[in-house]
Amino acid sequence: MAELVRMAHGSGGRLMHRLIEEIFLPRFGALPGGAGDDAAEVPTEAGRYAFTTDSFVVKPLFFPGGDIGRLAVCGTVNDLAAKGASAEYLSAAFVLEEGLPIETLSRVADSMAAAAREAGVRIVTGDTKVVERGAADELFIATSGIGRIADNVNVSGANARPGDVVIVSGTIAEHGAAVMNARHGLGLGGTELRSDCAPLSQLVLAALAATPGVHALRDPTRGGVATALVEIARQSSVRIVIEEHAVPLRLPVRRACELLGIDPLYVASEGRMLAVVPQTQKDAFLSALRSHPLGCEAAEIGRVEAGSAGVVLHTTIGGLRPLIMLEGDPLPRIC
Amino acid sequence: MAELVRMAHGSGGRLMHRLIEEIFLPRFGALPGGAGDDAAEVPTEAGRYAFTTDSFVVKPLFFPGGDIGRLAVCGTVNDLAAKGASAEYLSAAFVLEEGLPIETLSRVADSMAAAAREAGVRIVTGDTKVVERGAADELFIATSGIGRIADNVNVSGANARPGDVVIVSGTIAEHGAAVMNARHGLGLGGTELRSDCAPLSQLVLAALAATPGVHALRDPTRGGVATALVEIARQSSVRIVIEEHAVPLRLPVRRACELLGIDPLYVASEGRMLAVVPQTQKDAFLSALRSHPLGCEAAEIGRVEAGSAGVVLHTTIGGLRPLIMLEGDPLPRIC
Repeated sequence: MAELVRMAHGSGGRLMHRLIEEIFLPRFGALPGGAGDDAAEVPTEAGRYAFTTDSFVVKPLFFPGGDIGRLAVCGTVNDLAAKGASAEYLSAAFVLEEGLPIETLSRVADSMAAAAREAGVRIVTGDTKVVERGAADELFIATSGIGRIADNVNVSGANARPGDVVIVSGTIAEHGAAVMNARHGLGLGGTELRSDCAPLSQLVLAALAATPGVHALRDPTRGGVATALVEIARQSSVRIVIEEHAVPLRLPVRRACELLGIDPLYVASEGRMLAVVPQTQKDAFLSALRSHPLGCEAAEIGRVEAGSAGVVLHTTIGGLRPLIMLEGDPLPRIC
Repeated sequence: MAELVRMAHGSGGRLMHRLIEEIFLPRFGALPGGAGDDAAEVPTEAGRYAFTTDSFVVKPLFFPGGDIGRLAVCGTVNDLAAKGASAEYLSAAFVLEEGLPIETLSRVADSMAAAAREAGVRIVTGDTKVVERGAADELFIATSGIGRIADNVNVSGANARPGDVVIVSGTIAEHGAAVMNARHGLGLGGTELRSDCAPLSQLVLAALAATPGVHALRDPTRGGVATALVEIARQSSVRIVIEEHAVPLRLPVRRACELLGIDPLYVASEGRMLAVVPQTQKDAFLSALRSHPLGCEAAEIGRVEAGSAGVVLHTTIGGLRPLIMLEGDPLPRIC
């Protein structure tokens, strides 16, 4: 039987990587050194630029801590930041379902404008398509972004080295938990479960200014911290060891994940950054993150070792558990 | 009652312009001189770049002369060309409906890769989301593009001047007629009705190299030649007079439009360019277009005059008919 697209092809996990490796990369190719990162570095005549794109299909459109508009701006700004680039220009392409209230579109556009101001980026070009009722689910947005990469910065998932330290900029899994709570009316404390959705450009640029020798950055969105680390481990052919007890996690988020039966290490954040940093720059990097409101709970969570490519979790009860890429898609349409 | 999104909000015509003017521009702003063009000129330290985006929701996915993949590449390449820019890098963001055959996605990706090679552009970054059955219609693609603008080129819909000549690079309305024929099985000659979908970067760059003083370029997609000219007339505050008899139109396309009850001047092309050129450069520009296979049927179709902003059609039977922006959306999901 012919193979069909499954929800898990959009999960950020294993099946999505297969789609990229089997369908897209063989046809479109990749720029030198670029395959596997969330943004491409595009050489221009007078500088290094990063270019990235994302579609957003989150459901519901509005959730505590954000909405599809804020997400569409932050997601693309953060993919640029993960390449060490400061977002300069964004595009926004909308697919609207016939019958969507114009008021909904206005609220989303308000939110995009506010997030763009927060990130110091301009939305400079756009497009709108409309499809019949039932041919799309309310509203989808695709954003693309361009940003300048400083000359002394060279971050890529392929640059992690044995001896490096793994850092996360704050508490994890809040976006995914908040969206699932809103979608399913889980009845968990609505005020406590808020998306962490935020533009990280200023946080990351400040930290890179303090420690330009950072090796790798990645925002742990779909597939969560575990999948993002597996990507880096594979790109760099290294073993990453994570200390479970060190991973910052708020209690209501932990409880929501338990209720959903999902490991928080696989739940999306939308305002957090993972970093792989040389041991010698660890303290300066952490202190730069912690001096910014979006990084005040930054923590060292693990280390990079030589060894076969993969991620191992040192659990709180003292065991060792391999972390693989997300299988299936337990949290569809999270972004 | 609350205003709702209607199909016509995606038509390229009057309601879409209202959406842009009332919802997007007040919130996102526009770069100096950029409002109203299909691509934004973004100043960078590396020179002048154009940046643009489009979503594609065409139905059916495959049609004579093209498919959604070819369209997604050509549409964005042509929006860059209309700003005088050579496409350098593209992004592609997919929204897939659960259950889409992987084989369909592969064919679309093949077609995108082929169109990108034809256009001399690279697809360097992408994204894939999947939504449940019934939450999207098979497959949507959003592409964005970046291209360099040569220093001596300055084209914008705002630059048309009285005395200029209006040129179209070839026969019109073929894309729209071919898609409607395929969608509705109109039974019109399938071999004769083919989309004109093609990347125009090389045609336009060759013509601009010959005559860098071109004032305005626009690809007449949604809303057709009439709507594109009304946009230019408004941006430049000029009157444009078009000679109906001079507009190149193939007989099968004319017949299809008659059957559909639609004026071909409002039907989309996806491989044609409108140009507004100073009288003194007209011959050189036409001859540059005609020496390229995609421009061999280029024709002078009208002129720019002083007067109140608008477009007037000098009909074949000798009348004068004002051309307004497309009202409603007689040909939904054409791109």
